Amino acid sequence: MLTPPEAREKFRAGLRVPTSGYCAGWTQANLLSLPREYAYDFLLFAQRNPQACPVLDVTEPGETSASIFAGDLRTDLPAYRVYRDGALVDERTEVVDLWRDDMVTFLIGCSFTFEAALLEAGVPVRHIEAGSNVPMYRTNRECRPAGGMSGPLVVSMRPVPADLVATAVRVTSRYPAVHGAPVHIGAPGLLGIDDLSSPDFGDAVEIRAGEVPVFWACGVTPQAAVMRSKPSFAIGHAPGHMAITDARDSGFQLP
Amino acid sequence: MLTPPEAREKFRAGLRVPTSGYCAGWTQANLLSLPREYAYDFLLFAQRNPQACPVLDVTEPGETSASIFAGDLRTDLPAYRVYRDGALVDERTEVVDLWRDDMVTFLIGCSFTFEAALLEAGVPVRHIEAGSNVPMYRTNRECRPAGGMSGPLVVSMRPVPADLVATAVRVTSRYPAVHGAPVHIGAPGLLGIDDLSSPDFGDAVEIRAGEVPVFWACGVTPQAAVMRSKPSFAIGHAPGHMAITDARDSGFQLP
Repeated sequence: MLTPPEAREKFRAGLRVPTSGYCAGWTQANLLSLPREYAYDFLLFAQRNPQACPVLDVTEPGETSASIFAGDLRTDLPAYRVYRDGALVDERTEVVDLWRDDMVTFLIGCSFTFEAALLEAGVPVRHIEAGSNVPMYRTNRECRPAGGMSGPLVVSMRPVPADLVATAVRVTSRYPAVHGAPVHIGAPGLLGIDDLSSPDFGDAVEIRAGEVPVFWACGVTPQAAVMRSKPSFAIGHAPGHMAITDARDSGFQLP
Repeated sequence: MLTPPEAREKFRAGLRVPTSGYCAGWTQANLLSLPREYAYDFLLFAQRNPQACPVLDVTEPGETSASIFAGDLRTDLPAYRVYRDGALVDERTEVVDLWRDDMVTFLIGCSFTFEAALLEAGVPVRHIEAGSNVPMYRTNRECRPAGGMSGPLVVSMRPVPADLVATAVRVTSRYPAVHGAPVHIGAPGLLGIDDLSSPDFGDAVEIRAGEVPVFWACGVTPQAAVMRSKPSFAIGHAPGHMAITDARDSGFQLP
């Protein structure tokens, strides 16, 4: 089991893998870096949509590390996505030459944190069993907009045996800083999801007889907002390829 | 028992009382209105100090109501405090003629929300018994600054019988959006509080034998930051004279 600095060193050296299962007990985070001129609108968007965008940390403009991330934000994630005017233009393993002095970086809670708690409570997590990325879907639910920032809610899905759905709600609601309780249980059609086997991000997973699809707000929502809102420039993580922070999961558990 | 619109109508008509005990079950909030040029620094200050400044809602510039407050933010609180360059220059029951088109209003969680839960769990709340305002103290703990915004942590204090302190922690930690768990238990000297009988805001309360002073982060912290940071203009509520919102306390309870 690697420590966060050891894992970040491997990613800095070029290792490109999803981070699910890495550094158990250490908090993983979604990343979004935007020019300072967009920072207020995005911070307000996050405040208005806290289940999708729980902000764990925000840097000063140009900073390359954060209070909960002692590494280099430009190199120490396994993969990045680069957006210009809302269009995904590149995916790469470092963004050193793209960095600007006015970039403000947001670290946003990730549901990987509560998956360890789900497993401990006896709730199976299919995409971990399968060794794949969690399936994520754009929904027909609009986030509450803020200034120039708007977009749809993105959700992650985990199939849960019917007799464990209540346990999954109880366990994850104790982690509001990492998306908290589910936003929807069952009935994917009501979220505008017609085909669970075709996720918009990540990998499809098997749903077995007696299992219910349970949906949590997802930290890819900020990147969906970037695609819709078209800031001139933005950098995000590649979905599932997270920032491994120096914060402990236990610090985000309530009560 | 009044509804929030009924209570706000009384305050609009000039009633000036602390709101503790008003509209049980409905969420009360701290208010801070700042010109737009200070909004990002304050929102970031709040994000970095979430126990003291849990943001429940933020208006667009100039708006006089909020998504969780259908009344008029300029008239429907019992009393307001007006700051110029960080100095408290006025206390009044409405601020209509002071309002500006660029004012952004922040509604911030208030510990009055969890007091009903404390009482229900059998934890006495002394200032409610006494019919007085909760005692609040400036501490020697610095908040994490953001841009031009900095200031000390302000705490509220409730004396709790020693055998109920653990219960008080458990109950209040379920309400992170309204200050959550205590920040300090016992030993006021370590917070730089030399004399519990002389609070900086609100009223002193009796501490009986076998009771421990328990300290929660307080929503007056933003006004202490205004006094330190000296924005050109700011409007806050008078301590204890809160905004009564249309949100229900139960919506902020976890899990």
